[in-house]
Amino acid sequence: MNVEAYMTELGERARAASRLMARADTASKNKALAAMADAIDASRAALADANAQDMQNGRDKGLDAAMLDRLELTPARIDGMIEGLRQVAALPDPIGGIRDMNYRPSGIQVGKMRVPLGVIGIIYESRPNVTCEAASLCLKSGNATILRGGSEAIHSNQAIAACIRQGLEAAGLPQEAVQVVETTDREAVGRLIAMPEYVDVIVPRGGKGLIERISSDARVPVIKHLDGICHVYIDAEADRSKALNIAINAKTHRYGTCNTMETLLVDTAVAAELLPELAEHYGQLGVELRGCEQTRALLPAINAASDEDWDTEYLAPILAVKVVADMAEAIEHINRHGSHHTDAIITENYTKARAFLREVDSSSVMVNASTRFADGFEYGLGAEIGISTDKIHARGPVGLEGLTSEKYVVLGDGQVRV
Amino acid sequence: MNVEAYMTELGERARAASRLMARADTASKNKALAAMADAIDASRAALADANAQDMQNGRDKGLDAAMLDRLELTPARIDGMIEGLRQVAALPDPIGGIRDMNYRPSGIQVGKMRVPLGVIGIIYESRPNVTCEAASLCLKSGNATILRGGSEAIHSNQAIAACIRQGLEAAGLPQEAVQVVETTDREAVGRLIAMPEYVDVIVPRGGKGLIERISSDARVPVIKHLDGICHVYIDAEADRSKALNIAINAKTHRYGTCNTMETLLVDTAVAAELLPELAEHYGQLGVELRGCEQTRALLPAINAASDEDWDTEYLAPILAVKVVADMAEAIEHINRHGSHHTDAIITENYTKARAFLREVDSSSVMVNASTRFADGFEYGLGAEIGISTDKIHARGPVGLEGLTSEKYVVLGDGQVRV
Repeated sequence: MNVEAYMTELGERARAASRLMARADTASKNKALAAMADAIDASRAALADANAQDMQNGRDKGLDAAMLDRLELTPARIDGMIEGLRQVAALPDPIGGIRDMNYRPSGIQVGKMRVPLGVIGIIYESRPNVTCEAASLCLKSGNATILRGGSEAIHSNQAIAACIRQGLEAAGLPQEAVQVVETTDREAVGRLIAMPEYVDVIVPRGGKGLIERISSDARVPVIKHLDGICHVYIDAEADRSKALNIAINAKTHRYGTCNTMETLLVDTAVAAELLPELAEHYGQLGVELRGCEQTRALLPAINAASDEDWDTEYLAPILAVKVVADMAEAIEHINRHGSHHTDAIITENYTKARAFLREVDSSSVMVNASTRFADGFEYGLGAEIGISTDKIHARGPVGLEGLTSEKYVVLGDGQVRV
Repeated sequence: MNVEAYMTELGERARAASRLMARADTASKNKALAAMADAIDASRAALADANAQDMQNGRDKGLDAAMLDRLELTPARIDGMIEGLRQVAALPDPIGGIRDMNYRPSGIQVGKMRVPLGVIGIIYESRPNVTCEAASLCLKSGNATILRGGSEAIHSNQAIAACIRQGLEAAGLPQEAVQVVETTDREAVGRLIAMPEYVDVIVPRGGKGLIERISSDARVPVIKHLDGICHVYIDAEADRSKALNIAINAKTHRYGTCNTMETLLVDTAVAAELLPELAEHYGQLGVELRGCEQTRALLPAINAASDEDWDTEYLAPILAVKVVADMAEAIEHINRHGSHHTDAIITENYTKARAFLREVDSSSVMVNASTRFADGFEYGLGAEIGISTDKIHARGPVGLEGLTSEKYVVLGDGQVRV
């Protein structure tokens, strides 16, 4: 197979389909999503067979238990895909919405209309249900999409793609609106991220290594986040019980997620009061603490944090702890060592809350809430394609709106420039 | 001079200044803008001297009349800079504005706060007044900026920069918030566009060659437009007088601007009625027409348009003319041959107007108005740093908002994820 020619063909078809998708009406898009859900429901046996083949190949190749778990399409996960499709169908259609139509002194009326981006390339690793999630969000936002899943999930992804095509066909939409790359050749990824004439934006989902590689090689814009080094800062005027609850929840609710706290900052005024109690809770939950000198003066049993710890996303039951002199030091630490993902202050002080919100340069900044809330569903976006820690285009949880752009619309009655 | 070390130092200072600018209050920013205007007013003699030196060097180097004209800082242009600074001071401050704060079922309240991008690099050619315009927009939007003007304007730019620094100082803002690159070494540009750690976005202003080179080499996002191949489509149901007025204005109001019409599309139903009269007007104004076969059947005296004409931005008194069978052919032509800048339909038909607005994939789409209106001032943005024909981040005329991003803000009362 000539991978370059194959990818070019996918790109050409996606570009052509994107023009039709941009003008597709809301009813057709929702009909396609519902028909996809029905097709998946009716294809449970075929999906199970395809997935069994991937699982067998994965075991033969010696994939580890975590990867095999992500690869598996359990009946519950199939239910989840179906439910997800119905939820996306129920979301408002962002496309074509017009805002801020105002008259200008010249007599023209100017506003902005929301439009699709065009063609979105999604590159992801083992979880086959991403195929369905990503396709549904791109479709609802009027985009065409090219999906490149992990090679270990190729049979599962193709079985899901067949259901997606059925749904598109049932709604009279072009089947090329959602294309799954059918080769596992890695050259396909290299080509996908370097065809600006056919692909408008790339969304990589997966480990940091994958995302770094794609970002550095891509010749089209990439919506991505690399790290989630999130902080909770317990201010001198924090409410004691809010501080304890949030510090425990932000670290221990789930360890492997990007919005999990990795560094706890504690104001020196309350460190002696709070740290021993927190350390006891963390100890019971099996969390290893690594502290600065002042922390270790209060908690002599824990290890010292190295310089590297402040810049590390553990994704594990490990927490770096630092005592700071005041909020200014906390903000300075967060802006320097954080990954601009999600950071929270715990305080009852209005003025400090307001300053923290303004001065912390992160995609989500919180007062008295757990960093674990940084999520498209929790924020009310209905769904998310990922979280962006970039400032350009989309920032924070990215839902349908992040997959769109706007154009100016101008209505006149024959006006000319004078 | 070690250009790389010099640019790194500028970058580090800009990054540090950007943190202070992000939290600068509206009054300080406006005070700085007013003080800059005063400083320029008080420095007319110094500006004239510096500019005279650039003009003399330019004449010695044999710059053409058009370049010398752009380079000159006349008293009227100095007045324009002063007036521009006062206008930007009068614009609303976008930074810190919070929208859509809604309660979620969990009890947290989520919204979005507008924030600066950080550090903006501006690369431009001969017009020294751009130094002042660009600095004022970046400052008001809370960004630090590094300005790299044309080498032929170096003395003028440094004289303007001195006034800008006076203004920043008078307002207690960091002088490094606006830095003008003081070397004319071209390596400085190469470094400026490849320091993602210090520069968040590049805005190139100038000819297509400059912008293409920067876009292909940049390692940070670029807000840009390459071409302005704008169309006016006269529909079968166009009002005759609106059609004539707009077709003339869109081409002849100014020839060298990016929102000037380059191709006129005329519905076959009205071609015989309108084209001869239009041709007479264009002829009187010295516009050369190049037509498709059907156009030449009506206007035998004109030259044939080649395939290349449909893809050309003339920036000159030349117009390509094509007769189309219907609106669908017009939209297809525009989406294929246009540059996604600005395109207009002239029609009295409601359904066609609505479809044209939706289906034409351009940064500005108009009904019954001249393409010449595509401009930040005409749209009410107050000022513009440029026009973007990209879909990512900013599209169309880019004002203060295009130089900002948003972050999510979350207010809670101790909520944790369950």
